[in-house]
Amino acid sequence: MEHLFYALPEDFDGHNFVKITGQEAKHISKVLRFKEGDEIQISDGLGKVYDCQITATTKSSVSAQIQKVKTHPKPTVRKVMVFGAIKKRDRLEFAVEKAVELNASEICIFNADHSERSKINKDRMTSVVLSAYKQSKRNWLPKIHYLDSLEEVLDHYQDYTPVLAHVAEEVKKPPALPSKKNVFLIGPEGGFSDREINMARQYNAQFISLGKTRLRAETAVMAMLSQYLFTD
Amino acid sequence: MEHLFYALPEDFDGHNFVKITGQEAKHISKVLRFKEGDEIQISDGLGKVYDCQITATTKSSVSAQIQKVKTHPKPTVRKVMVFGAIKKRDRLEFAVEKAVELNASEICIFNADHSERSKINKDRMTSVVLSAYKQSKRNWLPKIHYLDSLEEVLDHYQDYTPVLAHVAEEVKKPPALPSKKNVFLIGPEGGFSDREINMARQYNAQFISLGKTRLRAETAVMAMLSQYLFTD
Repeated sequence: MEHLFYALPEDFDGHNFVKITGQEAKHISKVLRFKEGDEIQISDGLGKVYDCQITATTKSSVSAQIQKVKTHPKPTVRKVMVFGAIKKRDRLEFAVEKAVELNASEICIFNADHSERSKINKDRMTSVVLSAYKQSKRNWLPKIHYLDSLEEVLDHYQDYTPVLAHVAEEVKKPPALPSKKNVFLIGPEGGFSDREINMARQYNAQFISLGKTRLRAETAVMAMLSQYLFTD
Repeated sequence: MEHLFYALPEDFDGHNFVKITGQEAKHISKVLRFKEGDEIQISDGLGKVYDCQITATTKSSVSAQIQKVKTHPKPTVRKVMVFGAIKKRDRLEFAVEKAVELNASEICIFNADHSERSKINKDRMTSVVLSAYKQSKRNWLPKIHYLDSLEEVLDHYQDYTPVLAHVAEEVKKPPALPSKKNVFLIGPEGGFSDREINMARQYNAQFISLGKTRLRAETAVMAMLSQYLFTD
């Protein structure tokens, strides 16, 4: 099936029925015009994908009966994609969308020393994540969250190994991932500050290169995740 | 220096002067307000980067005296990025911009069997290439061109080795580049047709995977070039 939809944990009745409401229901019934009797696939974002048959649609809900379930185990390698806030909205959304497509386990946006501050529309970001999640046919929905500085990031992920892309590194292929739990760090447009680089060193970050051209922040996010596409 | 500008071969007088006109001149003098006496860097797109001092600006031109030149040899490994036309303008432009940043030697957009036809604004594409070229601080300006089918692509690049990203391939890390002259092939949103896949096989294309998630066309372009960032 081409289309994959998403239902919240509370949309499942615990037996064989699921009732989707809100935007997703409108998307199914109004935009794509699915109706009673049609078969759809629904993901719970937690590894389970349900083959369902629609039993009823209203203006604001889609009810469906579960016919089959497939369970996908949680990936054993964690790849958290952390990057400095990007001021331009289209580039920020692109970075988030691509991080989901390129299999980031989790996304975190932080205010870097050189980030230009601007307000992030978090609802919009959540919707970008969900849309890319469905489009790319993943099974575990990546969370997205927001931290105020690199200190907070390194504290929050203190049992993770930081892997930081730094322009000053020698241009060579990055080594294999250092551990099962990795946090990838990309600076903002202006790069990391010296203070941040020193702090990352104190946290025993591994430093890698992303080639010899100068990459925009959102490109670095994609290039970094692309280095580790085949790790789980 | 932060800013790198571009001059056409005919802008150089063959001695120590260069005179930039058109959009680039306006960008230097009007937008960024460089003036007589300021130092700028100018690339000729053919491996040479000139440190220059501005000698005069008019409404439509910037003249500068060359003070130093650095020559960058032509990369020995060719990585031509070929992809099926993408209908949505922002995604098409993103693919082109990112291909330049991620060091494609040349870019080619073709009408794939599953491409949705739409008119490409070639002037706009040329400007996207130039802007990304300067931003990413490359030394050899990648050409962009347009072909009508995969046949034309494979004929045009017949002394290149085709490397094709295909969803049906086993998910594993791609092998090293097969040759010095490589042409990377990415399908349109709907993927390659069976006809195209068979044709690529006849041309002895190498097939690779780009991971287990479903990637949008522009994401596949970036993921593919990212696999080969460290080849020259």
